[in-house]
Amino acid sequence: MRIAIDAMGGDNAPVAIVKGAVAVAQERGDIDIVLVGNRQRISEICPMPANVEIVEAPEVIENEDKPLMAIRRKRNSSMVVALGMVKEGTAQAVVSAGNTGALMAGASLIVGRIPGVTKPALAPVLPTRTGRGTVAVDIGATMDPKPENLFQYALMGTLYARTVFGLENPRVGLLNVGVESEKGNELAKQTYGLLAQSELNFIGNVEAREVLEGRCDVLICDGFVGNVLLKSMEGVAYTLFSQMKEAVRKGGVKGKVGALLLKDTLKALKDKMDYSKYGGSPLLGINGVCIKCHGSADAGNVKNAILNQAYVLVKEQTIASMTKIMGE
Amino acid sequence: MRIAIDAMGGDNAPVAIVKGAVAVAQERGDIDIVLVGNRQRISEICPMPANVEIVEAPEVIENEDKPLMAIRRKRNSSMVVALGMVKEGTAQAVVSAGNTGALMAGASLIVGRIPGVTKPALAPVLPTRTGRGTVAVDIGATMDPKPENLFQYALMGTLYARTVFGLENPRVGLLNVGVESEKGNELAKQTYGLLAQSELNFIGNVEAREVLEGRCDVLICDGFVGNVLLKSMEGVAYTLFSQMKEAVRKGGVKGKVGALLLKDTLKALKDKMDYSKYGGSPLLGINGVCIKCHGSADAGNVKNAILNQAYVLVKEQTIASMTKIMGE
Repeated sequence: MRIAIDAMGGDNAPVAIVKGAVAVAQERGDIDIVLVGNRQRISEICPMPANVEIVEAPEVIENEDKPLMAIRRKRNSSMVVALGMVKEGTAQAVVSAGNTGALMAGASLIVGRIPGVTKPALAPVLPTRTGRGTVAVDIGATMDPKPENLFQYALMGTLYARTVFGLENPRVGLLNVGVESEKGNELAKQTYGLLAQSELNFIGNVEAREVLEGRCDVLICDGFVGNVLLKSMEGVAYTLFSQMKEAVRKGGVKGKVGALLLKDTLKALKDKMDYSKYGGSPLLGINGVCIKCHGSADAGNVKNAILNQAYVLVKEQTIASMTKIMGE
Repeated sequence: MRIAIDAMGGDNAPVAIVKGAVAVAQERGDIDIVLVGNRQRISEICPMPANVEIVEAPEVIENEDKPLMAIRRKRNSSMVVALGMVKEGTAQAVVSAGNTGALMAGASLIVGRIPGVTKPALAPVLPTRTGRGTVAVDIGATMDPKPENLFQYALMGTLYARTVFGLENPRVGLLNVGVESEKGNELAKQTYGLLAQSELNFIGNVEAREVLEGRCDVLICDGFVGNVLLKSMEGVAYTLFSQMKEAVRKGGVKGKVGALLLKDTLKALKDKMDYSKYGGSPLLGINGVCIKCHGSADAGNVKNAILNQAYVLVKEQTIASMTKIMGE
């Protein structure tokens, strides 16, 4: 299996991206890595194993670039070249920590969408206290989806959760403001109707406070709301941990000793709440495996995205299953 | 000033509600409290000071009741009778921890809306690490508002923040998925345009992860998204604290000693993140002071809602200011 890596995208590119991808190549002889980007800069980072190839791409799409314009004008960017490899079939998956909007636009334009899918979705695994996590679809790819789009998210999310969690019949929940079927905005109410009539394992509405409790395996929401959900979770966790640090600092010897004794506990908790450890988010609805890593992804996140998402989705032929279900 | 209390609404009613209201009466000779509900049950709770009156209301609107139907049928419920007192002017404010939907419907139907306001909003103060908090409008009163409604929320939210925070020119932020003006769904983009042209102190888009940092004093969002934001904050805080407890329990002696030393620190942090300590949420857009307390409000929350919101809003004549600005 060949996986193309956008080596130049992300806050820590190219060093962290290259290190993460090379770590995969070293561990796994069955995965060929193609690092796409500035050959000189990439080759200086570390020695390359035999199953790593570098493909030159002189341009870089920056975070500040307008997505659509960047994809159209920067034909020789690492992102566009990597996406092109999936289109041509010279790679089976692409992983990028670059400009999210550009990756979504580029994936739709270059790789194309699964027939029947009009709106793609970004689907990270959110942490839950049960440990397994919840696939959230969509957390920001599509801003004003229709009920039919959300219904497609549920179909694709079910297949994705089946692949990554190994669950036969993942529980699908609809993010809403209350558990009763008549709750919510028009979008939620109409989507509820579609899901309730389907053969999916639809468990009904799920409130935001229940998400972390692991009430469902697949959480359906529109991209605007999903983005707010994800970022508020990040924000609260970040604020709580930094406030705790500050309080401990001010707490004198007692606080410091307490913190020292609890250090491992707090570290484990922080790791558990860190959704980036699951790797990246697939772009569901794209006719190929495209994985978006967090902009601040480190080598470990990139490695996880390649192994936990890109590799698994290719191996299990999940895109073919999605194409089949969309044709039904 | 006379404040009507729905003594029978809320998970801890009537005991917690009555105790909180009576505590206010004991401290403040300038506030008369009217406890509305089952006279017998209320009078058994504690001795009543001279500035507390009980008004009999035999019916109770339950959480399971359909809001509109409950308001129409249960004419002798504590909530409907208390709202009627504000309408008639025999009380200047009403405080309730009862059925949120019923209180919103009842406030619109009985007290009425400020002329020009078509959609009311629920506006709690969210905690921020700066300590002051942010007024979030709306967190669930209106599910599918239009840009004009959100613009009105910004006007009313500014007057409310001026009253409760004592700020001359509160910073207004729009909850969105990115800081750039072109970000977001159609509702957010159109609302951005209205706010940018106004004379409000509009600071632009605010991402969910920045809310707790105190980036703005008034946060504007639609009721669906606001509800998800609020509940995800509650959910993360709850999960983090309970996971911490569990980890400490499993952590043996080291964990227990550490937790003991950090107990005060963690308690202070928990209190800081507890938005209910600010009291209740006013129903903005209603032509009178209506304060909603959390369903699980305790006596302290009720007391805070009476003093920090009901009393202040009446004293500062904030509703008159809102009526004036809506007429302009």
